[in-house]
Amino acid sequence: MTVMSGEIDLRARIDEFFRTSFATDNPLITEAIQRMLAAGGKRLRPRLTLLAAQAAGGNIEEHLAISAYMELIHVATLIHDDVVDQADTRRGVNATAVDFGNRISVLAGDYLFAWIFKNVTADYQHPIPHILSATLASICDGEVLQLRSLDNIALDMAGYREIASKKTASLFAASARCGAIVGGGSPEIIKALTRFGELFGIAFQMKDDLLDFVAEQAEVGKPVGHDLVEHKVTFPVIVALAMLDDAAKAPLLQYYGGDDDSLTAAIRAVTQSAAIDRSNSIFEQTLDEALDALAPLPKEAHAPFAALVESVRR
Amino acid sequence: MTVMSGEIDLRARIDEFFRTSFATDNPLITEAIQRMLAAGGKRLRPRLTLLAAQAAGGNIEEHLAISAYMELIHVATLIHDDVVDQADTRRGVNATAVDFGNRISVLAGDYLFAWIFKNVTADYQHPIPHILSATLASICDGEVLQLRSLDNIALDMAGYREIASKKTASLFAASARCGAIVGGGSPEIIKALTRFGELFGIAFQMKDDLLDFVAEQAEVGKPVGHDLVEHKVTFPVIVALAMLDDAAKAPLLQYYGGDDDSLTAAIRAVTQSAAIDRSNSIFEQTLDEALDALAPLPKEAHAPFAALVESVRR
Repeated sequence: MTVMSGEIDLRARIDEFFRTSFATDNPLITEAIQRMLAAGGKRLRPRLTLLAAQAAGGNIEEHLAISAYMELIHVATLIHDDVVDQADTRRGVNATAVDFGNRISVLAGDYLFAWIFKNVTADYQHPIPHILSATLASICDGEVLQLRSLDNIALDMAGYREIASKKTASLFAASARCGAIVGGGSPEIIKALTRFGELFGIAFQMKDDLLDFVAEQAEVGKPVGHDLVEHKVTFPVIVALAMLDDAAKAPLLQYYGGDDDSLTAAIRAVTQSAAIDRSNSIFEQTLDEALDALAPLPKEAHAPFAALVESVRR
Repeated sequence: MTVMSGEIDLRARIDEFFRTSFATDNPLITEAIQRMLAAGGKRLRPRLTLLAAQAAGGNIEEHLAISAYMELIHVATLIHDDVVDQADTRRGVNATAVDFGNRISVLAGDYLFAWIFKNVTADYQHPIPHILSATLASICDGEVLQLRSLDNIALDMAGYREIASKKTASLFAASARCGAIVGGGSPEIIKALTRFGELFGIAFQMKDDLLDFVAEQAEVGKPVGHDLVEHKVTFPVIVALAMLDDAAKAPLLQYYGGDDDSLTAAIRAVTQSAAIDRSNSIFEQTLDEALDALAPLPKEAHAPFAALVESVRR
């Protein structure tokens, strides 16, 4: 159990770093961010940065700041998501937009992005600032693609993976890549860890989509079926549409065709079919591909990543 | 009149650069930005960058890209302002938020910021990327300060200048500073041009606040009295509150105290008092201070800046 407790320590170390060393120049925005951080989260992105830095030969304690920026980019996108989606809850607590209003939420997210880049451009050499800004562009691009794909039942797995790659996996890939770079990894090690981050991120999004169907509200901190209510065509839906016969998928076609009353039947069409099992096995397979990407690393470096993988597999 | 036509050419050159050389990787966002650019604007920020580059010894044609990023940062903040302020019109055309929805507006602004930083971190050395991100943080900070100062009739000229400096002048100062740096200016020249940008930017905000009281809607592309409707305590209001007697300023106190019916009387309290003349003379004086800041530059370098100043003085 050494590896598992090592993982738990990493998360605690990151949270301690946030509590003791994090403040922006704006107290109102610092408070909003501290509240979001205190509400929960697994800190997967900064953990990935620190594990990658370590695997590349670096010292975890020296790279807490860059790992924190990865979590903060995620927090900034969540703050703007709350405006974008007009979500009422986020991680089980009131969204920034609800507490402080849309006006402050847009500004708080902008300020946080700017504050991150201000610090990163002061403290890190090329290509770190470039990776972070390119990643943010990719995240936005993926979100726009997702908006344009609402109710699009023709979206296939390739289209889904493109959106998940840009919207979600790009930040996991950047977290691993920046960790590997600051840790002093070789080009081959940097490439392997970036690939791990990318595949781990796609699997993470698949799991997130699955939980929207099968989890309890308390577990994910947002209402179950929320993705469907927003008319997103998510991973299990795409799997269901590809494998179900016409009669079985009729409620899904009705719901995405504009009949909001079909919501419950549409959810049931997915959850009571083999689509959940099939989705789970694609998800597991993607996690395995992520672990395979670590082949260039020495065997003893694999264990902490395997533990990270297990923490989302459950 | 050579200088004046030189100035007009600069604006045309910038617009030509946008038409021929500007596209982001996202066609939807490029279209939204091109529409905003086509709707008007004086391109004061990129002109300032190019004039500063020239004054520092550089060649204007080599620095069109960095000047364009200055305008694009401004455009990105306008896109987010439209969400923030729920404005219906901007520069006389429909706001991005009205045409494309709040969700796309937040994402389009984020994408544009990220795309700018992605390019700037790839193409420019330190400190250019750092100046731009610090400036964006400053703009957001100023906007937050302004939101917290709504209806605050205790706001004095020092408080007003702090907000104007962060929200508006910081980008003018950065435009001049980046131009001076890429043009190869000495530290003394960089400092003088930055100071010019800062004072010019504060004067620009003063004029913008004045126009909200005295301009015709067609002239400024937004409804007159709009700042007051948003409960902002602007430059002429602060001047009026400081110079008027209790009876004369009563409608202002009523309006900012919560009596929306006093709007017309509050506007009249400012426009029919000596506050407009007094505001104008403070504005003129600030422009003169901006020109004074150019003292370290050779005499022959002053003329294009004087022309820029004249274009906002009118």
